Amino acid sequence: MTAVMTESSAVKKTAIRRATIKDVPYILGLIKELAEYEHEPDKVLCTEDMLEKTIFGSVSYAKVLIAQTEEGIPAGFALYFYNYSTWNGKPGIYLEDLYVQPKYRGSSYGSALLYALAQELVDIDGGRLEWSVLKWNTPSIEFYKRLGAVPMDEWQTMRVDGVQIAELAKRSPGILE
Amino acid sequence: MTAVMTESSAVKKTAIRRATIKDVPYILGLIKELAEYEHEPDKVLCTEDMLEKTIFGSVSYAKVLIAQTEEGIPAGFALYFYNYSTWNGKPGIYLEDLYVQPKYRGSSYGSALLYALAQELVDIDGGRLEWSVLKWNTPSIEFYKRLGAVPMDEWQTMRVDGVQIAELAKRSPGILE
Repeated sequence: MTAVMTESSAVKKTAIRRATIKDVPYILGLIKELAEYEHEPDKVLCTEDMLEKTIFGSVSYAKVLIAQTEEGIPAGFALYFYNYSTWNGKPGIYLEDLYVQPKYRGSSYGSALLYALAQELVDIDGGRLEWSVLKWNTPSIEFYKRLGAVPMDEWQTMRVDGVQIAELAKRSPGILE
Repeated sequence: MTAVMTESSAVKKTAIRRATIKDVPYILGLIKELAEYEHEPDKVLCTEDMLEKTIFGSVSYAKVLIAQTEEGIPAGFALYFYNYSTWNGKPGIYLEDLYVQPKYRGSSYGSALLYALAQELVDIDGGRLEWSVLKWNTPSIEFYKRLGAVPMDEWQTMRVDGVQIAELAKRSPGILE
């Protein structure tokens, strides 16, 4: 079987489903695998309880899609949330994590997850699908460019976290409701 | 009155309130002013109807704070949404737009909006406050660094939009609910 035929038949077999609270242990495992791949295994402070509360609790801050084989075995996941563009006046999708386990790579599970997110973006009348990639990860950047993604070279992301958040919050004049 | 005293008294005068649907024309005006400041006035496709639908409609994709003078005159705004970190297992706040009108600059309205967002982040038990700035805008970058913000130099944001979204969506295997 040629590589192309393998890929083509794999696409047909791929199923994408929404995650449920039962997937939390699997999702946390993939979050940790991805952090190892990114050379940052110690950065994962997330626990199963935290995922249950923040994604499957009364307020949900993110959504999760699972890619699985035709036998229903999970192969990877996409974790995302809706963002917003004031230029578009529309929501968008920000893909926080995309990960396919090593033994399932090369079978288009990653592409299928991205395609499903593009479909969801169309469904919500959204404008942009965005994500971040480590600059040293050139194979992924090349893969994303082939899908039509453009690097946002003119923009610099800034972040405040940790104790500095409490410092800034102390100076808040309050929010009138 | 010294500059320090002016700033100090201005902070006391600043009030931050949540925007309502009545603020839509003002918000759209600021979105357009900000796009001009960013040298991209033609990029704003957003209309009042779109803001009403996507922010003040049955589904709300973003939140807006208005900074105003003690007389209740609006001086600037912050438009933001909640994002999510899988490393933290927590939500965060992404600041899409921060803008203070020229005649109100230098009176800490911008800082007050950032402080209020830090307060909201604490209230939701969030981890990070993030935003993007144009790389040529070094005065803003220096201002943000003084507040404790760190540039995310290792990461590259990627984006797919326009007709390419429909191209990717066509290949979606569908999402099982």
